[in-house]
Amino acid sequence: MLKKAAAVTLTAGVLFSGLSVAWNEASAGKPEWAGKGLPPQANAEKVENVIFMIPDGFNASFATNYRWFKGENSAFDPFVKGLVQTYSANTEVTDSAAAGTAMATGVKTNNGMVGVTPDGKEVPSILDAAESADKSTGLVATSTITHATPAVFGASVSSRGDEALIAPQYFENGVDVILGGGRDYFLPASEGGKQPAGNLVENAIEDGYQYVTNRDELLAADNEKILGLFADDAMAPELDRDETDQPSLAEMTEAAIETLSRDEDGFFLMVEGSQIDWAGHDHDAAWAMNDVKAFDEAVAKALEFADEDGNTLVVIAGDHETGGMSVGSNGVYDLNIEVLHNITATGDAMAAQLNDDLSNIEEVILENAGIELTEEEINRIKNADSPSNAINEVISDRALIGWTSSAHTGTDVPVYAFGPHSDLFVGLHNNTDLPKLIAEAMKIEFGN
Amino acid sequence: MLKKAAAVTLTAGVLFSGLSVAWNEASAGKPEWAGKGLPPQANAEKVENVIFMIPDGFNASFATNYRWFKGENSAFDPFVKGLVQTYSANTEVTDSAAAGTAMATGVKTNNGMVGVTPDGKEVPSILDAAESADKSTGLVATSTITHATPAVFGASVSSRGDEALIAPQYFENGVDVILGGGRDYFLPASEGGKQPAGNLVENAIEDGYQYVTNRDELLAADNEKILGLFADDAMAPELDRDETDQPSLAEMTEAAIETLSRDEDGFFLMVEGSQIDWAGHDHDAAWAMNDVKAFDEAVAKALEFADEDGNTLVVIAGDHETGGMSVGSNGVYDLNIEVLHNITATGDAMAAQLNDDLSNIEEVILENAGIELTEEEINRIKNADSPSNAINEVISDRALIGWTSSAHTGTDVPVYAFGPHSDLFVGLHNNTDLPKLIAEAMKIEFGN
Repeated sequence: MLKKAAAVTLTAGVLFSGLSVAWNEASAGKPEWAGKGLPPQANAEKVENVIFMIPDGFNASFATNYRWFKGENSAFDPFVKGLVQTYSANTEVTDSAAAGTAMATGVKTNNGMVGVTPDGKEVPSILDAAESADKSTGLVATSTITHATPAVFGASVSSRGDEALIAPQYFENGVDVILGGGRDYFLPASEGGKQPAGNLVENAIEDGYQYVTNRDELLAADNEKILGLFADDAMAPELDRDETDQPSLAEMTEAAIETLSRDEDGFFLMVEGSQIDWAGHDHDAAWAMNDVKAFDEAVAKALEFADEDGNTLVVIAGDHETGGMSVGSNGVYDLNIEVLHNITATGDAMAAQLNDDLSNIEEVILENAGIELTEEEINRIKNADSPSNAINEVISDRALIGWTSSAHTGTDVPVYAFGPHSDLFVGLHNNTDLPKLIAEAMKIEFGN
Repeated sequence: MLKKAAAVTLTAGVLFSGLSVAWNEASAGKPEWAGKGLPPQANAEKVENVIFMIPDGFNASFATNYRWFKGENSAFDPFVKGLVQTYSANTEVTDSAAAGTAMATGVKTNNGMVGVTPDGKEVPSILDAAESADKSTGLVATSTITHATPAVFGASVSSRGDEALIAPQYFENGVDVILGGGRDYFLPASEGGKQPAGNLVENAIEDGYQYVTNRDELLAADNEKILGLFADDAMAPELDRDETDQPSLAEMTEAAIETLSRDEDGFFLMVEGSQIDWAGHDHDAAWAMNDVKAFDEAVAKALEFADEDGNTLVVIAGDHETGGMSVGSNGVYDLNIEVLHNITATGDAMAAQLNDDLSNIEEVILENAGIELTEEEINRIKNADSPSNAINEVISDRALIGWTSSAHTGTDVPVYAFGPHSDLFVGLHNNTDLPKLIAEAMKIEFGN
């Protein structure tokens, strides 16, 4: 229960100047500028572009497990600057709607609410503020693009479930690049969708948007405004993605940057690694690591652009942790993350291949996870209420990755920043500080 | 299992100058300088004194839970600067001996080894380097003072269990202030101790040490060298401490600073909050929070001194996480940390009050934890192999604090720094970087 006395908001926002960075040769080769010299942290007077990247459900334990999974630092590891408090207005453990509202608008709200205060008042987002400063704007996600986290940047609704109300607001608010899943929320029932207000895709095309629905179309896109909807509902988990059909998060990020950077007034882009959170809810360690990988590759694209551009600030922070993941578990001083390298499908996808009596469990797990199950593990899966959950538990136990909850947790999450004024992010912050610091770096009006 | 490819050591050590800090009024009153203006982060040419404080077993989840437990920021919260990788030479999940060796000597070694390389070669510590630079040195802990973490700063042995070999090395290495538990390792069998090499206490007194054994004697101590041994074995957990007998960690820290700061050449002091780790092993959330509180109060004393002195750097970092603690658990979007405020004893101490058939379980828990147990909880404790563990599980479930392991975990831990050159600690570090950065700040020779 949230106590008033505990609603701590102290921030030590430390302002630095005269930067230099010591590099270790171990990082050579990735990302592009590593090992070549100093990254471009010179303090430009004013940040023209901001890329705000949110790995939903990610904290330091995800970062550590992913570093071992990858075998080297993530693209963002070296740029950690501090920690962020994630609690919402009504509980120590936030959901993505309240956390996103804090990160987009600078205002704490109750779980479930999108872009509004606890009493329902609409508050503008940092994306709105960028719009007002004549910048181009974009939203990229691997969930439905109308899901809680992207929604808070481009819409205001009292309930996160109102995705059909969220979609039209993106156009009203002038979002120039919209890439993700959730086609159903843009199309009317006559087209198989769930949008009661007409055909938003047709309207968008009339309004000058290029509309794309698969990877090839996205890579060929050439326009100032793009609407890319790559699945009826959420996009595929990275592990299950058909690479010839759906673009990767890195490809969407790169396309968004290419499009938005045509605007001489600069741009604001939000990119979410949406499904890290879903993997955490499911305790699906392989899904989690592969979706962090997709996010890491998207960050690398953003950092490459920021490095070349010199006036771009990249800020990266999870909105909360999901699952209570640990690095090592069950009393063992070890981690067997290599178990995850052989896994080629999510627990859900494996469970979907099981026949009714689960008699093919050994073949399914051997084929998709490279694991020869023990008798004990077979019985554990067969006797479970949810075979999918049990598969994920068996794999996590083999990898020595622990979990404490099927929900989010309330631990502080790391914040990473690269580019001019990235030093603003050193220290302990509240999630509501992030859009304010971004506005400060961009020198734009942001009133909340 | 540790893969070579994964032994990542990239560090982004960012050097800043021209600091200023934005303060939030919410912090007013604690620590002393908060709210009064700018903390003394001006970059002195050379740091004269370093206070290196290690909360054993502590990470961001402990920090978050403690912030809710306290109802406001810890003394160190605002000074978070980045993250530290904790793995040892032979596994992703370190023990305290290998972690301490890394933090004291800058060298990775195998679990269990103290101040030596994996092949047994002795390596000097940052405390030795400070000695060589004519500084006074001190070690403070709430464990036996010969336990793994303090040991690595003042001794070198192949096995952390050799505490009787560790004790005489402190004197050989010229440690001026030695405060903690473990009297048995300084006294011979004739005095009821376990030290085979004679009476180290007598030798120390002859060598000019003032010897103290309780709180009053410590507070009255007035000498340049102090040996304070306040328990035969470990000191008491903060929850169970007799305040008229044993000093608090804050009192030991203050006494050590007062003593060491007489040296015009400066000093190096290591302070460990030893039992946060033990609480984590036991999943004893109340013990954990109360020992973090004791550590927090010790940090406040160190920061007060550093603030007044201006040439003192305070560095704070856990050596690893213990227990896989989470903030929230069991699928609930909430935290009930206030449950812990009523608890007045550790799970061990409560279990010790149970009669043989556990028939007094309800009275014991009501008296020591203020909890009226449900039938289900009573049965859970009665049917458990370890009543102590079961009591801790019941309390953690009520508080919605989760755990994944009875061992350490391998997640990155936060690093905090205050004072001149604290900016050296911004970014991602390896635990082996910490003594090197301290040496850099002090401008002393440190060869490993």
